[in-house]
Amino acid sequence: MKPVTDWIGLDIGGANIKLAHESGLAFCDPFCLWKAPQQLAARIKHLLQRASDTLWDEESLCPNFGVVATMTGELADCYPTKKYGVRHILNSTSEAVRVSLGTEVPLLIYSTSGFLPHVRAALESWEAVAAANWHGLAQFVASWQLNRTGLLFDLGSTTTDLIPYSQGKVLANGSTDCERLHWGELIYVGTLRTPLCSLIQELPFRGQHYPVAKEFFATMKDIFLLSGMIAEDEEDFDTADGRASTKELARGRLARMLCLDSESYTMEDAQLATEYVVNCYQEVLGKSLVRHLSQRKESEWDQIVVSGSGEHLARSIAQKVAPGIEIVSLRDSWGVEASTAAPAFALAKLASQLYPREGSPS
Amino acid sequence: MKPVTDWIGLDIGGANIKLAHESGLAFCDPFCLWKAPQQLAARIKHLLQRASDTLWDEESLCPNFGVVATMTGELADCYPTKKYGVRHILNSTSEAVRVSLGTEVPLLIYSTSGFLPHVRAALESWEAVAAANWHGLAQFVASWQLNRTGLLFDLGSTTTDLIPYSQGKVLANGSTDCERLHWGELIYVGTLRTPLCSLIQELPFRGQHYPVAKEFFATMKDIFLLSGMIAEDEEDFDTADGRASTKELARGRLARMLCLDSESYTMEDAQLATEYVVNCYQEVLGKSLVRHLSQRKESEWDQIVVSGSGEHLARSIAQKVAPGIEIVSLRDSWGVEASTAAPAFALAKLASQLYPREGSPS
Repeated sequence: MKPVTDWIGLDIGGANIKLAHESGLAFCDPFCLWKAPQQLAARIKHLLQRASDTLWDEESLCPNFGVVATMTGELADCYPTKKYGVRHILNSTSEAVRVSLGTEVPLLIYSTSGFLPHVRAALESWEAVAAANWHGLAQFVASWQLNRTGLLFDLGSTTTDLIPYSQGKVLANGSTDCERLHWGELIYVGTLRTPLCSLIQELPFRGQHYPVAKEFFATMKDIFLLSGMIAEDEEDFDTADGRASTKELARGRLARMLCLDSESYTMEDAQLATEYVVNCYQEVLGKSLVRHLSQRKESEWDQIVVSGSGEHLARSIAQKVAPGIEIVSLRDSWGVEASTAAPAFALAKLASQLYPREGSPS
Repeated sequence: MKPVTDWIGLDIGGANIKLAHESGLAFCDPFCLWKAPQQLAARIKHLLQRASDTLWDEESLCPNFGVVATMTGELADCYPTKKYGVRHILNSTSEAVRVSLGTEVPLLIYSTSGFLPHVRAALESWEAVAAANWHGLAQFVASWQLNRTGLLFDLGSTTTDLIPYSQGKVLANGSTDCERLHWGELIYVGTLRTPLCSLIQELPFRGQHYPVAKEFFATMKDIFLLSGMIAEDEEDFDTADGRASTKELARGRLARMLCLDSESYTMEDAQLATEYVVNCYQEVLGKSLVRHLSQRKESEWDQIVVSGSGEHLARSIAQKVAPGIEIVSLRDSWGVEASTAAPAFALAKLASQLYPREGSPS
């Protein structure tokens, strides 16, 4: 088999498929896996085709591609079990790679114990393959920041990862998501999907605190729309009530948390509530961060690496909680494109480090 | 106008339309208002027709019907504002009554300050008409239990009402839902819809407590399916993942709260978690109950009236919190049928008390 010249990382999630080339080129396909799992192979094919078309200039030699894949999509509720989901995603990925790039292209699968050379091996170790994308990212950060002791603080749209590393090694206690919840390495709080009722018990309103409705009326997306951190999008209906992602409608969703409506709840009311929720939110994540940092003396921490769609929030929480520790931004270091597909990019880089161009996996 | 011989109460909610005759005959139409508001008038018509057909035996004289209506459906998110919702529901109800029962049939609208004689008056006082069904029920309980001091503890599928009354009068501090949240007279916790993540921060699992996913993965319905309080229903897909209301699938939804799946989470695991959640749930409602009871000496309370789809839970909470106070069950007192449509039944009874057969409202 010819040596691989171009590694492509794939991160197959429940709401997005992300692809990154080791150069930093990246694509994201917003694909609701749970709505149409049978379309998965076609969507991956399309994404690989786009990447291949962009990377292969007609006048240059055809690159020898290698693909390395990870996933979280097996958690989508179209799959009766995780194992079933892992198998379906592996088979879909394998089919897509064969059809788009050829049968000779190597497909590695990332697991929490390293790369697996083919789908068969990955199926056998499906538990280490399921939801392993956090590990791929942490592993690459650890090797990129070799000789440093740090904490990866990845604040995503649905969940947050807090992963310690040192001397090139990931020092996570948990391996599965359940274990990671237990160790505070996975915190099921993000910048978009988190229901407000899961985070707060009450909201301030005209001088008093009111208990909120324990109901799925509003999410963190509404809060960050109102705070201006997220741009409005008239076409994005992925909200608690299926209406658009605008400030006006976010105000209405927030009003429902107090059994009010948009006529009885002004934008000023909503802005005050937003500040309150952002504080609660930062407090929840700040406490988790402190718990991790308390495992070592502060002087032993070299850095906190912040990343994810909530990177700048992660930065401000880290600055507040640990002002003496250096903060490294993946966005600044890798660029917006690669950092948006960070696990996919990390895998492509890891594979190219492990299998330099002189040789490739057999 | 002829005197009314038969009062019919209508309670138009977001998920059910309930109708009750003052005799205790009652019907419930499970109708998702937010999905098809334009069908509302037709659904009410159909329900009135069923009632009229059942009540009017061909051989007897045609009854002179009167209708009294209340609502909570204006909160459904198909309506941009509550005011808009109240108007649409009033107009739909008025149309349905005219078409089904005739233009001469009186239609009263219940408000927190009493009956309003027609739709025009109700539109002017829409704020007192919105979500007033709790008041109608409490008012009838207060007059039924005349000379008693008590607390109505109505544990419904979505929310819980705790309303004190004495000497035939409702003693609520709040009038709107927002005020009622503030006073603890409305607690936005019920037996079915409440998201688990809004109620609990962690779950026990094999000897330890695990933080849960702050995500809309499971609801109280799953807990009460697992506890056996609610019967399984293969045809009921009103769950967090849109799958059926069975114990097996409830176990899978609960597993997701810990990022597990049905293969890694046994029925025994689920049963232990269920006990824990039921305890938390009873504690939340128990605290609210204690807060209300603490407003008077225990000896001044004659009774706690329990009702709603969670009536027997309300009873067991009340027995634990206030073992010395008599408990009155609406189900035992009024029968299953009338108590299931309690506010509609209460309104029909209130109207027939206020307008006895000798005369009717002009």
